[in-house]
Amino acid sequence: MSRAMLYKGYTRKILRVNLTEGTVKAEELPNGQLRKYIGGAGLAARMLYDELAPGIDPLSPDNKVLFLAGPLAGTIAPTGSRIGVYTKSPLTNGFFHSSAGGYFAPELKYAGYDGVIIEGASKSPVYLYVDNERAELRDASRVWGERTDATQQWLKGDIGDEAAQLAVIGPAGERLVRFANITAGCRSLGRGGIGAVLGSKKFKALAVRGKGKLAVHDMEGTLKLSHEIMQIMQGNPSTGQVLPWFGTPVLVNANNSLGVFGARNWQQETFEGAEGLSAETMRQKIVVRDKACFACPIKCSKYSVVTNAPFEGYTVEGPEYENIFALGSMCGISSIEAVAAAERECDDLGMDAIETGVSIAFAMENFEKGNLSARDTDGLELRFGKTELMLPLIGKIARREGFGNLLAEGVKRAAEKIGKGSEAFAMQNKGMTFAGHSARGLPGFALGYATGPRGGSHHDSRPTGERCGIVQRDTIEGKPAYTVKVNHLMIFTDSMIICHLAEAIWGPVEIKPVVVDILNRVTGMDVTTGEAELTAERIWNVIRAFAVREGLRRKDDTLPKRFLTEPIPDGPSKGMVITEETLEKMKDEYYEIRGWDRATGIPTPQRLLALDLPDIAEDMKQILSQEQGR
Amino acid sequence: MSRAMLYKGYTRKILRVNLTEGTVKAEELPNGQLRKYIGGAGLAARMLYDELAPGIDPLSPDNKVLFLAGPLAGTIAPTGSRIGVYTKSPLTNGFFHSSAGGYFAPELKYAGYDGVIIEGASKSPVYLYVDNERAELRDASRVWGERTDATQQWLKGDIGDEAAQLAVIGPAGERLVRFANITAGCRSLGRGGIGAVLGSKKFKALAVRGKGKLAVHDMEGTLKLSHEIMQIMQGNPSTGQVLPWFGTPVLVNANNSLGVFGARNWQQETFEGAEGLSAETMRQKIVVRDKACFACPIKCSKYSVVTNAPFEGYTVEGPEYENIFALGSMCGISSIEAVAAAERECDDLGMDAIETGVSIAFAMENFEKGNLSARDTDGLELRFGKTELMLPLIGKIARREGFGNLLAEGVKRAAEKIGKGSEAFAMQNKGMTFAGHSARGLPGFALGYATGPRGGSHHDSRPTGERCGIVQRDTIEGKPAYTVKVNHLMIFTDSMIICHLAEAIWGPVEIKPVVVDILNRVTGMDVTTGEAELTAERIWNVIRAFAVREGLRRKDDTLPKRFLTEPIPDGPSKGMVITEETLEKMKDEYYEIRGWDRATGIPTPQRLLALDLPDIAEDMKQILSQEQGR
Repeated sequence: MSRAMLYKGYTRKILRVNLTEGTVKAEELPNGQLRKYIGGAGLAARMLYDELAPGIDPLSPDNKVLFLAGPLAGTIAPTGSRIGVYTKSPLTNGFFHSSAGGYFAPELKYAGYDGVIIEGASKSPVYLYVDNERAELRDASRVWGERTDATQQWLKGDIGDEAAQLAVIGPAGERLVRFANITAGCRSLGRGGIGAVLGSKKFKALAVRGKGKLAVHDMEGTLKLSHEIMQIMQGNPSTGQVLPWFGTPVLVNANNSLGVFGARNWQQETFEGAEGLSAETMRQKIVVRDKACFACPIKCSKYSVVTNAPFEGYTVEGPEYENIFALGSMCGISSIEAVAAAERECDDLGMDAIETGVSIAFAMENFEKGNLSARDTDGLELRFGKTELMLPLIGKIARREGFGNLLAEGVKRAAEKIGKGSEAFAMQNKGMTFAGHSARGLPGFALGYATGPRGGSHHDSRPTGERCGIVQRDTIEGKPAYTVKVNHLMIFTDSMIICHLAEAIWGPVEIKPVVVDILNRVTGMDVTTGEAELTAERIWNVIRAFAVREGLRRKDDTLPKRFLTEPIPDGPSKGMVITEETLEKMKDEYYEIRGWDRATGIPTPQRLLALDLPDIAEDMKQILSQEQGR
Repeated sequence: MSRAMLYKGYTRKILRVNLTEGTVKAEELPNGQLRKYIGGAGLAARMLYDELAPGIDPLSPDNKVLFLAGPLAGTIAPTGSRIGVYTKSPLTNGFFHSSAGGYFAPELKYAGYDGVIIEGASKSPVYLYVDNERAELRDASRVWGERTDATQQWLKGDIGDEAAQLAVIGPAGERLVRFANITAGCRSLGRGGIGAVLGSKKFKALAVRGKGKLAVHDMEGTLKLSHEIMQIMQGNPSTGQVLPWFGTPVLVNANNSLGVFGARNWQQETFEGAEGLSAETMRQKIVVRDKACFACPIKCSKYSVVTNAPFEGYTVEGPEYENIFALGSMCGISSIEAVAAAERECDDLGMDAIETGVSIAFAMENFEKGNLSARDTDGLELRFGKTELMLPLIGKIARREGFGNLLAEGVKRAAEKIGKGSEAFAMQNKGMTFAGHSARGLPGFALGYATGPRGGSHHDSRPTGERCGIVQRDTIEGKPAYTVKVNHLMIFTDSMIICHLAEAIWGPVEIKPVVVDILNRVTGMDVTTGEAELTAERIWNVIRAFAVREGLRRKDDTLPKRFLTEPIPDGPSKGMVITEETLEKMKDEYYEIRGWDRATGIPTPQRLLALDLPDIAEDMKQILSQEQGR
């Protein structure tokens, strides 16, 4: 056993489930790679780069879904107990990662495993039950077609253990909606359609129960530092007050007053109905309780109950800011109760609320501008602000019924089918829609959106630095270097799988020493912040290489026409725009810093060798020479 | 007229009021010094260093009180419209500065003046009425003895102008309570006893009405940048959400959960009654409205009304965090209503609520530990938590009645009179009590407290960096350099007179470019952040030299015995302490960075020459050689 095998925190075992063959095998985690890739998104990117052949269909048995708990999961280390899920996305066609809080990851660790990898496809619906070290595939026919809530209830009965932690798909995943989620408890693993990949494999759920122990390298040091981190969090305005009290919806007023709050499919960046959607209104009208994830002092999650007509009786863990944006302002809706009901419907159908909301907004703009008529939409008058449309339309998408079948493909593919220039209204990059943070009003973040492997994600880069005045907003100077640093902070924390909402503690721009400090105390590594930067860059390049292998090039690092040509028409950020020239200039500088080929956006073999990725350097060398031969 | 005379923002005129002679004269602001000292605390420090002979009694006619509006006052520049007041403090014997928001400073600027300097002493009570360019001394006998609220009401009638802005003293100032305040509207200029200095001069009030215009160097640029700053503020968690919603009392829970919330005269650093004092409780129970100062988007001020017995009917602009600490936890009191009533009483009597609360806590500990008995306290049983004592005791102090006369001297002098080792319970440095931020639990801030010219002030250094995790809390490494940087941020912003609550925007550690940017656009200067650092250091040294001339030496840069010998006994920061050895080590490094003589703490002539202070270099050289001759 090599020295590297001795790192603590990891259980060093994963389960490999082959659904085609119906087998479940435990195997060693590739331990030689722990220090090199840390875990989570880093380790998964490397494993899927190696295990997935280029060009496979994400919804075929060739694709794989990897669940991973991070090195801190199950320990007291604050926010370190998230579960990550990894696959090739049916929405973006790239390596995809998503993580969620809650209580799933610790349970998996206590059962004795760092992860589970799902391969092949089953003929009939199954679920995997992991009861400590024991694991078996079981029949899930009874709940095929069931919503996520009912599925979780049934599973607890079938297992006979109320304490099991569950990750399930709903009807949207079964119908291969390209933005179907996995639901774990009340938390979602979302955006890129991981639920659809599981649906294509007829894999309904993963149920885990564990009662084992976890090894930690330096118990006393971990306890001490964890307490210190919790104290730092409690003293910080963001993690100590804003998020505990308001949750993520605090961004409604913050972004609206800055003029970077997307509304009506980004035709506006302020919303006249923001007050009705604000955290303050929400807390007054529907929030009944604050909820926290495992080992997290922030308790940002809100549990809400609607008590007035027409949505009386709807309950939801949320709403979260992004869903208020997507299902609220983007659709011209200003009722927090309507948003709560729509979010609950998405959760229960197992479908991403951001993609759903933005797809509906896309349809509404197309309808209002004449690209769609009632004949195309099963008779629905798709106009902004029509609250009564939301629940029926969400149901149609999840069931791929009529017009819903078109939107279930995501806005990029839907626009291709609609034609008539409707692609101008598809507010997406690389197939994924933009989250509720402005591109035009946050120039550095715009570069992050354009170059981000997940396109419209707000977790490849972050809007926070520019929004909070940590870096100057209305300039592009220094932004490429800033974006690189934030990329690295994001991917390193995603490899440890610690929560981005604590970015003020971990960063918020560069990887702070406390991040590697807690990693070291739990695992026994002796990573420095310098090594962490390098590791983050390595992982970032693996993910880029994965995409390049699938055909991604410089031209795909872009933004929709609206962001590049129409200045923000309203509010305090009126007039701001990222022109194509500006974007390309920032990309030049960004590629330069990254050591990527300027013409193609492909990582250069030199830089990859410097990052100790000789095999990927070889792959990129071949692709580069093909490109240059054209 | 030299080029320097052309700076905008300044009106370039001050009024010099000689109360002994009964004269009021307009004179030119020393314009050659504007770039060198900026304004506010910087300009005042230089003027008072030049105008006040060493060794004068702060409560004699030899002392002067200078009111100054800053270069941004009256413009749209956010938080730039505070009024500053400067004098030699009867509490600390050093140069003292305090500033307050509200609406006074713009009015003074619109009247055509940057400031007013009050000299000498009147035989009978007077007030100064400035009506645009016209200024006259008027009889104030009718309101001598009146509270601040009644005084302001009477003044408006006497002037016949409801819109006048007023700065007045109350009974505490008239009786020379060493921590009497000036009250301007509902805001206080506090801590160091400036109200007593005015009281000693029989100067009851300054009333100002102005309708003139202000020159701004670059109007468009000022407008644009001001809007940008407001947007940055709205996007920042601290200035955008925490302060607007909760105000400064958000620190109750934040500090209590970090274990740095002083209680029962710092015998504890957590308080079991914190929940009852928290911002959340306060908002629920007594806050009726948010209030903002001139040109400030933060609206941190809360207007509160008590609606339940026994304090029903008390209204207050507040309570502020510091007063909740001093009049609440420090006195063992957990009722926000009781604190609101006590704060209102202090405001109305024109007496500093921090000093008042901490003085009472000092008396309570002395009483409980046997240094005081009911015979000393006019029969009052001074025990922690006795809410019913507060209003009577506050009244006694303000009127210097019986036992109140002892506390009116401040805890340092009171302890000297009580003897019996009671000085161990006097939680002060340089005569001023510590604000509601831990020394033991925030090591860098402890150094700031020890070396701060105002002793216990939380505005010479700041607790924020360590509390929010911007710098690591539980270490002294790098803290001297950090403290120097924060000192400079504080004094530079105090010279522009912009609000420290926006420290996240201006700093929070180093002077950010936006600070000098707004200064430059308003005034036409072309200051860089490098020059700003140097200017801040120059001002810091003038203030130090003022204190040295009064006899301050290295030994005075210290902390009370409790902080140096008793580790925090409770809560999350349990065990933390700043030993004398640690403090002296940090001081060595701090003096080294500052270029101050290590043995005496006196600024070296070399460094003063480098800061372009040749005359002060000469003064310090003489004092140093006397010291070394001893």
